[in-house]
Amino acid sequence: MKALCFDGKKLEYISDYPKPQSDEALVKVTMAGICGTDLEILQGYMSYEGVLGHEFVGVVEDAKNKELIGKRVVGEINVGCQNCEVCKKGNERHCPNRTVLGILNRDGAFAQYLSLPEKNLHVIPDSISDKQAVFIEPVAAAFEIKEQISLKPDWQVAIVGDGRLAQLIVSVLRTSCSKVTCFGRHQNKLDRLEKLGIKTKIGISKEDQHYFDLVVEATGSTSGFLDSMKLVKPKGVVILKSTIASKENLDLTPAVVNEITLVGSRCGPFRPAINALASGIISVDDLIESEYPLEKFQQAFDEAKKSNTLKVVLKP
Amino acid sequence: MKALCFDGKKLEYISDYPKPQSDEALVKVTMAGICGTDLEILQGYMSYEGVLGHEFVGVVEDAKNKELIGKRVVGEINVGCQNCEVCKKGNERHCPNRTVLGILNRDGAFAQYLSLPEKNLHVIPDSISDKQAVFIEPVAAAFEIKEQISLKPDWQVAIVGDGRLAQLIVSVLRTSCSKVTCFGRHQNKLDRLEKLGIKTKIGISKEDQHYFDLVVEATGSTSGFLDSMKLVKPKGVVILKSTIASKENLDLTPAVVNEITLVGSRCGPFRPAINALASGIISVDDLIESEYPLEKFQQAFDEAKKSNTLKVVLKP
Repeated sequence: MKALCFDGKKLEYISDYPKPQSDEALVKVTMAGICGTDLEILQGYMSYEGVLGHEFVGVVEDAKNKELIGKRVVGEINVGCQNCEVCKKGNERHCPNRTVLGILNRDGAFAQYLSLPEKNLHVIPDSISDKQAVFIEPVAAAFEIKEQISLKPDWQVAIVGDGRLAQLIVSVLRTSCSKVTCFGRHQNKLDRLEKLGIKTKIGISKEDQHYFDLVVEATGSTSGFLDSMKLVKPKGVVILKSTIASKENLDLTPAVVNEITLVGSRCGPFRPAINALASGIISVDDLIESEYPLEKFQQAFDEAKKSNTLKVVLKP
Repeated sequence: MKALCFDGKKLEYISDYPKPQSDEALVKVTMAGICGTDLEILQGYMSYEGVLGHEFVGVVEDAKNKELIGKRVVGEINVGCQNCEVCKKGNERHCPNRTVLGILNRDGAFAQYLSLPEKNLHVIPDSISDKQAVFIEPVAAAFEIKEQISLKPDWQVAIVGDGRLAQLIVSVLRTSCSKVTCFGRHQNKLDRLEKLGIKTKIGISKEDQHYFDLVVEATGSTSGFLDSMKLVKPKGVVILKSTIASKENLDLTPAVVNEITLVGSRCGPFRPAINALASGIISVDDLIESEYPLEKFQQAFDEAKKSNTLKVVLKP
């Protein structure tokens, strides 16, 4: 089959990559999104080698449960060992022996086929298009914030970042909090949010400092982290939604002095994400900027890397 | 009066420092403890200049409330402006315009006299000796953890560090949690905890990794932070109890991937600290290693800086 494979140094298109062979469900990938994590992996994050990609929608081609065959599905990306204490407590996403689609010891979605355990798959309703479904995984990651924090409707909420994930986080949080401000750097991305009625800002004014009850760091940069610490009020909460590649100048002193709570946040629950897209509460229709076949991966990745680009998808 | 004053470069003994003149209560300092924060200030932390010291016990010499005069007191160290939104919400400790005794724009306790607003003072019962009372401020800082986190009795708790503050944190947390392990580096300090029935360890074994529900970082070092991230289980909590001087190599990636909650923690409530010392639930009697007059501050600080020393106090 066709696949995009990362060998630890470079990403390569392979036309005869072996098709997945396992007890798991076999899914023919319809569409897969390029995510910030994919770009980080190309820089060495997770020391991953294998087929890249973890945001996808596809059709089940083979499964033990015959009712699944032919169904349009998305898939939870973490697969636990089922044997350890963490898995036994139902916390598979944090299993120390887990594999993660396209991220950790498990071939991913930038290929014609992938395999996942049947229980990881969610059949999606007809009301969600393929182009919408490819966002279910990152929308679920945004919903994870609501699992971790009891949001109060009158909170002042700031999102730092205006990229792919930040756009989805804004949409998810505004379903619970009306006072949401997005701090970004790219006028075209902020314009999209303004159209949705979100307050946006480039740069932090004096009035913004220590004003927000909840701040979501969604840039994955040291400067985004430092901005978040400036924005959050004493005893407030900062959600760390992106891994921060640099380890330099991450000053935690303000967190101690101002008694800030920092909450690391990763993958989230698929069900509320599917419901939100099916009901139209969250719109992702204008987020895809372009589609490429796997063969044109270089163009696709070049475009995804540009700072003013939103979502780029691959069609295997 | 005699005072120890830091001019931003060096600590100096001054025999004729002006006695505090203010509307506040005037307190004659009986005894004052040297804290890790004092040592950090000498390295430039907070850019503080003035009389150092914030852990003290003294006797009220003058006050508007005449009933206070002659009473033995300890004092909360944060003084809010009373006018801002933060103060109006009763959150004076986080007032953006606050002064802090011996730390921020307010002369401290390494002097014969200090002044504080009357409402900052707590009269201490006869059952608490001066040598015990000097620990009320740091014991209160340890109690702050209980204000911030709802501790569960069956949690596995780790304290990283075996110094002055770590010793008090262990004592406070074991009143709520029976399974407390202290990870330290100094056998003599760990021996003290072993005598109190606390499990202690030097070095992290494979079994310790990602085993603890709650970890308290009490070293203020990058290595202590990294150890804490190794010890805490996925979705666990790390309390940041010390400011970390270095900004290098503070990798927050594990916090995101393992969805850790980091909670900055600073000053705490005096009342439970006073009660705990008065009732004998918490013992601090063997923590003071030596006492010095102000004039011998150099010896006192040299001793406080030694890695195997517990508490050094000054008697002005």
